[in-house]
Amino acid sequence: MNEVPQLIILGSIAVDDIETPFGKKDGLIGGSAVYAAYSARLFAPVGLVSIVGDDFSKDKWKLLNRKNIDISGIQVGGKTFHWQGYYEHDMNAAQTIVTDLNCLESFEPELPEGYRKAKFVFLGNTHPAQQMKFIEQLEAPEIIAVDTMNLWIKNTRDLLVQVIRRANIIVINEAEVRELFNTASIVKAAQELLALGPGYVIIKKGEHGALMFTEKSHFSAPGYPLETVKDPTGCGDCFGGGLMGYIAKAGEVTDAVLRRAIVYGSVCASYNAEDFGLGRILNIKKKDIEARYKEFREIRSF
Amino acid sequence: MNEVPQLIILGSIAVDDIETPFGKKDGLIGGSAVYAAYSARLFAPVGLVSIVGDDFSKDKWKLLNRKNIDISGIQVGGKTFHWQGYYEHDMNAAQTIVTDLNCLESFEPELPEGYRKAKFVFLGNTHPAQQMKFIEQLEAPEIIAVDTMNLWIKNTRDLLVQVIRRANIIVINEAEVRELFNTASIVKAAQELLALGPGYVIIKKGEHGALMFTEKSHFSAPGYPLETVKDPTGCGDCFGGGLMGYIAKAGEVTDAVLRRAIVYGSVCASYNAEDFGLGRILNIKKKDIEARYKEFREIRSF
Repeated sequence: MNEVPQLIILGSIAVDDIETPFGKKDGLIGGSAVYAAYSARLFAPVGLVSIVGDDFSKDKWKLLNRKNIDISGIQVGGKTFHWQGYYEHDMNAAQTIVTDLNCLESFEPELPEGYRKAKFVFLGNTHPAQQMKFIEQLEAPEIIAVDTMNLWIKNTRDLLVQVIRRANIIVINEAEVRELFNTASIVKAAQELLALGPGYVIIKKGEHGALMFTEKSHFSAPGYPLETVKDPTGCGDCFGGGLMGYIAKAGEVTDAVLRRAIVYGSVCASYNAEDFGLGRILNIKKKDIEARYKEFREIRSF
Repeated sequence: MNEVPQLIILGSIAVDDIETPFGKKDGLIGGSAVYAAYSARLFAPVGLVSIVGDDFSKDKWKLLNRKNIDISGIQVGGKTFHWQGYYEHDMNAAQTIVTDLNCLESFEPELPEGYRKAKFVFLGNTHPAQQMKFIEQLEAPEIIAVDTMNLWIKNTRDLLVQVIRRANIIVINEAEVRELFNTASIVKAAQELLALGPGYVIIKKGEHGALMFTEKSHFSAPGYPLETVKDPTGCGDCFGGGLMGYIAKAGEVTDAVLRRAIVYGSVCASYNAEDFGLGRILNIKKKDIEARYKEFREIRSF
């Protein structure tokens, strides 16, 4: 590593077996940190903090060790986290068959020395205890964004709320935010989140786009009209990664920057859904990102 | 009636008993034609084609006979259509308890002489046979917009498809369009609709806003972040009425006009949800419409 990456990402690295109405693929590299990093690296250099097992193959290491991704913060030991799941025709919710946490279960994030000065960090979806341990090692963070999932809302709600209190930006999906505050109203749930501390509450709605609530304003980003969603795995992580990658590149957080960041995150997520695993986002270039960003502008213009 | 109204609306007039988590109200005036007319009249003079029973009270007639609403096309006889339903905390779908079609069952629309020259018409949600009979009496329509519901998709699909073939604009909700073409993909369903003939396919998504598909473009209108939806009854009708009211006022149909019309329709629907029955839309003024239209712009800007 030559310099501190502009964005540090915490999250899982997984080996996934995925089935959707469009096919079945086993042994795909996945996990929240990986999808987020592949999106964020299109905007700024990123550093990954995560863990893989001794079984992690050379080919998979090669996939991680790409331009703009620093892997010096990845620990090794045990067996790699494994997830198996499927999607039915309504691709909004993954159905889990197997979750083997393996080495992820006892993972204690340890930031490389240079990472501790990071200004922009994305706490991808993982156990809130790991997110908190990560935060505690930061010396002077400017923007902390946090993502989560229903599992942590159900099992470790108090700890998750503590993490959210430390965050500037929370990224959460529609069903999760309703569950977190036991309400049908997204507007009310967003207000509860703002009351916890984050200045920016971002709610992911899959094909329906994304919303942002702040104390003063409301933003609604459109969804992208994909004819076929082949595999939605990792779309939420790509959204968060693209969002924080753009923010790290911008170097500041304002309402206008956040709005553009949300659309860039949506662009990354929309590409990711077009193929299994990393298949599509792997080959996306900056010019693809800009082309679809332009389409998003046209989609919502009136 | 002094002149031919700019927009003619076909649909039902009902007496509704409604229960939501925010209360219970009986004997409310409702029906697709009424909600559509109350929204459309904010943009242009409208004429109603519908039917009520002999039991329709003076107070209810007074509510119909408002500025910018011509009621000379309303037939009288039998007993008024009655609907009873409720909504649970997820306000997206109405649960029907009672549907007494009464006089609506044998209703045969008969257009007043002046209406036959109408250029802009909105076929609100009612039996496709009534929609077809209405179309056949038009001498030179320029824009026919049609709305429908799951009941007609299930029971009279072939007839409904014939009506859609005659329409320029179809307004349909998300669940309905999926059901109509038995697909989870809204994009595919929209393409099937375009193939039937309408140049503009508009899909209502409740709190998630609305989409428009044409052969050449895609538009996504945001939803309005209402903290409380008191009663969603009639929101779809208000959307269609506001949409066609604006188009009739504009006097032409272009991609740009349609986009603005969709946002105006969304504005009407968002107000309507704020109180039971016609409670809110009844008192909405043009300046309220413009104020919220401006908010929609801000919600969407990036």
